[in-house]
Amino acid sequence: MNPATALRALGPEPWNVAYVEPSVRPDDGRYGENPNRMQMHYQFQVIIKPDPGNPQEIYLKSLEAVGIDPRQHDIRFVEDNWESPALGAWGLGWEVWLDGQEITQFTYFQQAGGILLDPVSVEITYGLERIAIALQRVASFRDIQWSPMLTDGDVNLQAEQEHSKYYFEIADIERLRQMFELFEAEAKACLDQKLVLPAHDYVLKCSHTFNVLDTRGAIGVTERAAYFGRMRDLWRRVAEAYVEQRQALEFPWLVEDSMLKVEGSPHVESSANQVSNLQLSNLQPATFLLEIGTEELPSGDLDAALEQLYLRVPALLGELRLEHGDVRILGTPRRLVVHVERLAPRQSDLEQVVKGPPADRAFDPGGIPTKAGEGFARSKGLAVSELQIREMDGGRYAVALVRQEGRPAPAVLTETLPGLIAGLRFDKSMRWNSTNVAFSRPIRWLVALFGEQVVPFEYAGLSSGDVTRGLRFHDSAEFTVSSPQDYFARLAAQGILLDVAERRQRIQSQVEALAGEVGGEVIADADLLAEVTNLVEAPTALRGSFDPSHLKLPREVLISVMKKHQRYFPVFSKTVSSEPASSDLLARDTGTQGTLLPYFIAVRNGDDYGLDRVVEGNEHVIRARFADAAFFISEDTKRPLQDFLPRLRTLTLQTRLGSMLDKSQRVRSLADDLAPLVGLSSEEKATALRAAELCKADLATQMVVEMTSLQGVMGRYYAINSGEAASVADAIYEHYLPRFAGDELPRVRPGLLVGLADRLDTLAGLFAVGMAPTGKKDPFAQRRAALGLVQNLIAWDLDFDLGNAIEMAARRLPVPASAESQGACLEFIVERLRNLLLEQGWRYDVVDAVLAEQGRNPAQASAAVRILASWVDRPDWYTILPAYARCVRITRDQTERYPVDPARFVEPAEGELFAVLQTAEAACKGNLGSPDVFLNALLPMIPAINRYFDDVLVMADDAATRENRLGLVQRIAALAHGVADMSRLEGF
Amino acid sequence: MNPATALRALGPEPWNVAYVEPSVRPDDGRYGENPNRMQMHYQFQVIIKPDPGNPQEIYLKSLEAVGIDPRQHDIRFVEDNWESPALGAWGLGWEVWLDGQEITQFTYFQQAGGILLDPVSVEITYGLERIAIALQRVASFRDIQWSPMLTDGDVNLQAEQEHSKYYFEIADIERLRQMFELFEAEAKACLDQKLVLPAHDYVLKCSHTFNVLDTRGAIGVTERAAYFGRMRDLWRRVAEAYVEQRQALEFPWLVEDSMLKVEGSPHVESSANQVSNLQLSNLQPATFLLEIGTEELPSGDLDAALEQLYLRVPALLGELRLEHGDVRILGTPRRLVVHVERLAPRQSDLEQVVKGPPADRAFDPGGIPTKAGEGFARSKGLAVSELQIREMDGGRYAVALVRQEGRPAPAVLTETLPGLIAGLRFDKSMRWNSTNVAFSRPIRWLVALFGEQVVPFEYAGLSSGDVTRGLRFHDSAEFTVSSPQDYFARLAAQGILLDVAERRQRIQSQVEALAGEVGGEVIADADLLAEVTNLVEAPTALRGSFDPSHLKLPREVLISVMKKHQRYFPVFSKTVSSEPASSDLLARDTGTQGTLLPYFIAVRNGDDYGLDRVVEGNEHVIRARFADAAFFISEDTKRPLQDFLPRLRTLTLQTRLGSMLDKSQRVRSLADDLAPLVGLSSEEKATALRAAELCKADLATQMVVEMTSLQGVMGRYYAINSGEAASVADAIYEHYLPRFAGDELPRVRPGLLVGLADRLDTLAGLFAVGMAPTGKKDPFAQRRAALGLVQNLIAWDLDFDLGNAIEMAARRLPVPASAESQGACLEFIVERLRNLLLEQGWRYDVVDAVLAEQGRNPAQASAAVRILASWVDRPDWYTILPAYARCVRITRDQTERYPVDPARFVEPAEGELFAVLQTAEAACKGNLGSPDVFLNALLPMIPAINRYFDDVLVMADDAATRENRLGLVQRIAALAHGVADMSRLEGF
Repeated sequence: MNPATALRALGPEPWNVAYVEPSVRPDDGRYGENPNRMQMHYQFQVIIKPDPGNPQEIYLKSLEAVGIDPRQHDIRFVEDNWESPALGAWGLGWEVWLDGQEITQFTYFQQAGGILLDPVSVEITYGLERIAIALQRVASFRDIQWSPMLTDGDVNLQAEQEHSKYYFEIADIERLRQMFELFEAEAKACLDQKLVLPAHDYVLKCSHTFNVLDTRGAIGVTERAAYFGRMRDLWRRVAEAYVEQRQALEFPWLVEDSMLKVEGSPHVESSANQVSNLQLSNLQPATFLLEIGTEELPSGDLDAALEQLYLRVPALLGELRLEHGDVRILGTPRRLVVHVERLAPRQSDLEQVVKGPPADRAFDPGGIPTKAGEGFARSKGLAVSELQIREMDGGRYAVALVRQEGRPAPAVLTETLPGLIAGLRFDKSMRWNSTNVAFSRPIRWLVALFGEQVVPFEYAGLSSGDVTRGLRFHDSAEFTVSSPQDYFARLAAQGILLDVAERRQRIQSQVEALAGEVGGEVIADADLLAEVTNLVEAPTALRGSFDPSHLKLPREVLISVMKKHQRYFPVFSKTVSSEPASSDLLARDTGTQGTLLPYFIAVRNGDDYGLDRVVEGNEHVIRARFADAAFFISEDTKRPLQDFLPRLRTLTLQTRLGSMLDKSQRVRSLADDLAPLVGLSSEEKATALRAAELCKADLATQMVVEMTSLQGVMGRYYAINSGEAASVADAIYEHYLPRFAGDELPRVRPGLLVGLADRLDTLAGLFAVGMAPTGKKDPFAQRRAALGLVQNLIAWDLDFDLGNAIEMAARRLPVPASAESQGACLEFIVERLRNLLLEQGWRYDVVDAVLAEQGRNPAQASAAVRILASWVDRPDWYTILPAYARCVRITRDQTERYPVDPARFVEPAEGELFAVLQTAEAACKGNLGSPDVFLNALLPMIPAINRYFDDVLVMADDAATRENRLGLVQRIAALAHGVADMSRLEGF
Repeated sequence: MNPATALRALGPEPWNVAYVEPSVRPDDGRYGENPNRMQMHYQFQVIIKPDPGNPQEIYLKSLEAVGIDPRQHDIRFVEDNWESPALGAWGLGWEVWLDGQEITQFTYFQQAGGILLDPVSVEITYGLERIAIALQRVASFRDIQWSPMLTDGDVNLQAEQEHSKYYFEIADIERLRQMFELFEAEAKACLDQKLVLPAHDYVLKCSHTFNVLDTRGAIGVTERAAYFGRMRDLWRRVAEAYVEQRQALEFPWLVEDSMLKVEGSPHVESSANQVSNLQLSNLQPATFLLEIGTEELPSGDLDAALEQLYLRVPALLGELRLEHGDVRILGTPRRLVVHVERLAPRQSDLEQVVKGPPADRAFDPGGIPTKAGEGFARSKGLAVSELQIREMDGGRYAVALVRQEGRPAPAVLTETLPGLIAGLRFDKSMRWNSTNVAFSRPIRWLVALFGEQVVPFEYAGLSSGDVTRGLRFHDSAEFTVSSPQDYFARLAAQGILLDVAERRQRIQSQVEALAGEVGGEVIADADLLAEVTNLVEAPTALRGSFDPSHLKLPREVLISVMKKHQRYFPVFSKTVSSEPASSDLLARDTGTQGTLLPYFIAVRNGDDYGLDRVVEGNEHVIRARFADAAFFISEDTKRPLQDFLPRLRTLTLQTRLGSMLDKSQRVRSLADDLAPLVGLSSEEKATALRAAELCKADLATQMVVEMTSLQGVMGRYYAINSGEAASVADAIYEHYLPRFAGDELPRVRPGLLVGLADRLDTLAGLFAVGMAPTGKKDPFAQRRAALGLVQNLIAWDLDFDLGNAIEMAARRLPVPASAESQGACLEFIVERLRNLLLEQGWRYDVVDAVLAEQGRNPAQASAAVRILASWVDRPDWYTILPAYARCVRITRDQTERYPVDPARFVEPAEGELFAVLQTAEAACKGNLGSPDVFLNALLPMIPAINRYFDDVLVMADDAATRENRLGLVQRIAALAHGVADMSRLEGF
């Protein structure tokens, strides 16, 4: 937020700046106990505006300049997008990892103060202590040699301890709130006078004050949003005033582009010259290569781009009438590669029949071309004599046979390739240079070869050519390739595996081997493996270890830290441990997973040169990460879990629904209400109610604030630590289950019950206040809540009326819940059930039929679907459904229900049907929605039904007779009530 | 106040640090208009602790390192002592001038947070913009090349403009006061928890907030003191807590002294060895030289040291029985030199007669020595036979003739010289190294030569020797001299003028010559000349010029800036200008002084090498200084003078006497009361009352806040500018007259009247609240006020009863003024009158005689003193005074006044005397204190008086007769009432 960054990034003027400054982040305070996380660290801040074309290279040279030999380290650009709600700002970029340690933030600013940034600024923020730790190979910031006599710890430890204590324990909340108000008022007073910089200063003060309040634990969720809104509003005004000011000065720093050229920026040459030099004759089929060279693509974007190319390239070649052999789509974080074998040198010719005027208007009756006929021929470049007459579209027409000769492939590709690249879409894309094209990350080079010939085109300010770049830090960065074959050979020689599947396999086997060496194994995690595969070009796995004392930390914490923060593979013992792996707090059976071993496996980019150093760095990182977790847990366990409840008052899901404390109290009441439906023993119920009270408490703990994914896990851990019963702790953990697709489900009823109550409260509440999810937006994760609800009910095979349950939940809400909102809520949940069943592979018609009758009761509905589906598959189904369908169809428009009076029967078929009906009705009595019961009852009736319709005119003229007959059929149709709406089935 | 400076300077641990930081000083804001004064400048801050022994040299090398060739510049260390009332801190040192420009503050910290600093820290604070201005030879910070493309103005001008506007115009006073309270409360909360650094942060915030409030003009004098008190209290607690904390850690950075040795620090060798090698035989009379080499001494301290040496050295040599020729005391800012010619090689021998026991107790009647006699002889180292008997002190005693042989001069001096140096006293002295000796500034070398022989001694960690230092930047810094003669020759060769008078004369003639070259002259200013003489060793005067447009500024402002800020000599035209020099605002006749010319004369240290560059630098400085004055005046003249009155409400002289606004209203009322005594026309009175209203308004203007000495001058200027009558403006100016000894006096009655009222109000008020000056302390300058009052009354020869006037003033006060306080006030003023008259050379007895009767009326008293003095000088005075004295002496114990009844006369002499008395009484009737009237009336009575006493027994037995006779004599004595108390005269 330094104005040299925040303000200068605005507007069109160039700006290049670098400065060291202390960066204060109160909530990073660790009392000096963490090796590399501090409330104050020194950062070296760089802004380059506009993009010089090679900012990554400039950055990497700067690391070399301070003594980091990139060959000895693993330096990586790992996706990290930056967004500041308080600044109305965002950008895309990376965190730069040095041996697993984040040492720099590298961002292309896209927007600030709500203003689109053009040109884009490159922001590079170095973490100096972390770089010093690596350079000096010390274990902690405290050990950095600050001067010949003193360490960083000597100089700054006291400050870390004291400021941490101040921020976490001492800062006076009321006074800080007052400060915020005063700073805000001064900022506004400055803005009213268009004093940009003083206003900016005060916004900074607001921001810092807010951060202190937040660290002190004084800011609830809604309050946070309100504070953000106030700061964003202030800063938007600052930003606008700054731009206005510069505009009024006529942007004095705007200069000729040529003055902005930064040394080493890529040379952009017009490709026009190259095009004219294209060798287009005597072409032979050849291999085509397109390489889109980029700065490191995020893992998801790499997948998305490869998928799109996979679909698009063959289609495009087809459209272009270019015959070809195999198409391979390859890619790494730094390149997207299209590889086409045996691409035809020319398009195949095209003959098109173009319809002209009707024959009788193109030629007069004497066959002489009319004006219209001549005009048409001319427009197609033909002599009128070349027109033909054809029967088409139900008439006779003059047609032109237009023959388009195939053009040379290079010429066609030259025109087409820019569109191919431009057509790639990403969830988030960014601009970087004056062309303002958007891509996932900047494109820095383009290789396009047809055999040995360059296919020239321009995109994003670049000209395609035959110059590619190798693995970072490996040999020379840029080199020329003579052909696609040469390209593949050269990249392979550098260890780059272009093929994603090959890379994945290589990693997998390396990881397994390294785990095996210490008697361990890794548990398959496809997501992690896929992500790691997308983070490297030339993978080399390495194994690091950590102090076994860290194993005292909760296992889930260790795993989360390794996987989520570091993309490491945790290593487990191969045998199932009969004892808890670490502390007795980890009593929960971890299923088939072995004990966690004090190792991790990371994957570096590059070969094994200097691998020891890389291992050492990664070990340093994980030590700091674990220390951080230990810090949080140690802080959190200073008080019993229950003591965190008051803090929930400051956490608000949605304003009108009150605080999280209110919510947990409602969940407790609702669990009490729902208990009979779930069938708990009195002991289980007591457990459930206590668990409900505490179920959200861990949201206020530091460990969960830091890693939300650990909610429930930490709740369980802290509950045990606080002396709660193990069953209560388990229920706290389980009430979140399932957390994601494929997650485990609650195993005990208290956990099940609390989870149901929690989800019902969330859903009923949000629908009541009109916050149903719309479109793709689902900020409160209501879809997942509904799905979890349904999954649990099915898994526990619970007879459970969702409608009633929603009504119970509604009664506990602090707001009125209209019948409409309750209905919409039910419908929303049933829709999730429908999706679930469809995903399980059930026929949509079967699902719809059942849900129409039984959607309110998911377990029963799920069972019914299974049964009904088996009926539908029966070979005689074609006789069953039609019989029943006749009964439904003839009656479904009747609005009235008619009684059946056997006395009025006329035909024997009537009495006969009535008799079997009574048997069937008896069989169906008390049916809880089972299609078996219904259909087994129906089956014997079928002959009688068929005869009835054969013999009896239901729609008799005599009203009484007719109604009696309809009444009989209505009772047959009614047999399926509560089971399925059979009319939804195919063939009905 | 950065903790790396403020805190680390505390306690015994070593600390060396250097860092760049922005220094924000709101009241230096100039909207970016001043060339080198800004609300934010970058400073390079250095702390060296302990003193390395050569910090000045380290500093000067650093200037060379950034490209300042010291030979091409005039670099000077000019006294500047630092004191922070808010920090309870002070130190002594200099501002470093580069060609007249202050570029650095150089301070030896002595105390902080109320804690004595041991060791002392050296603080060096570089002003980076000013250094850059000099290096790049540009005119303003705005022109500094900040990067290849941008200037400092490009980057920072907007901030200067906006922050200046914020500080001066926008900052919300109420909100800032609230911020201060909140910051203070947080600081206290932190201190209660011993959180030193967070507390320090908040003290900093308090300090900045206070500075903004002050710049905004929101802080009155008393309030300022209260704020300072609060901050000092906070910071004292911070400082104490810091030291406690370090103590608890057992001062971990304390290491062996040897590790702290800084390269280049002077080598301190024991002089014991040298002493034993002293050549003590065959000595001849020789020249003695003592040089005390120092860092630059303040001008006043140099004078003080020379004066003390001048008195002390000859006395000391006498005490030491060392015969000698001429003694010369020489000195420059860097050395104090004692030069003794023909110093005897040995002390003269001493023979002492020591009185022993009475002769009859030392020897028995038989002349045999007693025990007492033997003991006495033994105690004196004599045989008892060597005792002598002498008549002395009215008795006969045994005496010992003790002979002390003279010792060699070098040996004696070795013992004595440390005491000579230690005996020098300064107003403020400082410590710098571990010896903790105190001196004006650090002593860095000692030369002591007796002829060619070193006189070895140690002081302040130094050993004396034969190594001196030359002129800074001239040849080598250190060199050895072989003898005193060599010493003088070598220094003279470098252009150093050791003799103060010679240096003064050299400067005087250079300055005159340079002024003459442009047809001008300098007006003698002994103080300025003396100071400049004390600022250089080798003076070279130079003339700079400035843009004549600056001459539009008030002349007094230009002169003040040149003399006080820069120690420049202003240049005046030789002819008396008939027209105002510059603008019509300068209408006041400036007497015999010529017009100010656009030149100034500065004196550099060194020769004329690179003089152009030095001139250029000095011209830059004066441009900035004048720009600053122009800024103040331009700000001030945005509103009429009257509009500054409300601001006076915030200025308080003394709490119980209200604000300066209250005061000026009282002055107006009192002027109204006093007008009849001063005899104003009604027009003059109207002028006076208006002037009284406005007389203090300029105290609230920026120009006067910046240079208090311009009060009145600016008031006059601004009054004219605001459309006030010229007479009002003059009266505003004049009411301050005289401001110092020798200053001009009011020329018009309105100015006189307002000045009288102002001073009477001040004096009566302060006495009423018990704030009379005590001892040397006179913080409200009451002595000057009283003196000015008296001088003006005398000058205007005003018949003015101070007692009445004080009573009038007292009636207007907001507090009761007791009769005692009024009496004390009157006495205080009369005492000033007495001093004045004595200074004018009048006999004290005459002065006392007159003042006893007429002290309340200074003008009359002054006249009376003159007259009485002439009578006292008359040859016949021996007849006049005794006659009158007889009358007084015989009556002065009478408590009753007796009527005279001629009917009771017995002797003819009575009637005769009564007759001449009646004539005399008639002559004296209505006498306004004139001794002439009284004495001329007395003169003819003398024969009658003498006869009366010869013939008449005044103290007759008969009570009625006696009283009648006494009554007659009482009436004679009474003739002097209201004229003089003749009994105070000598010879009375």
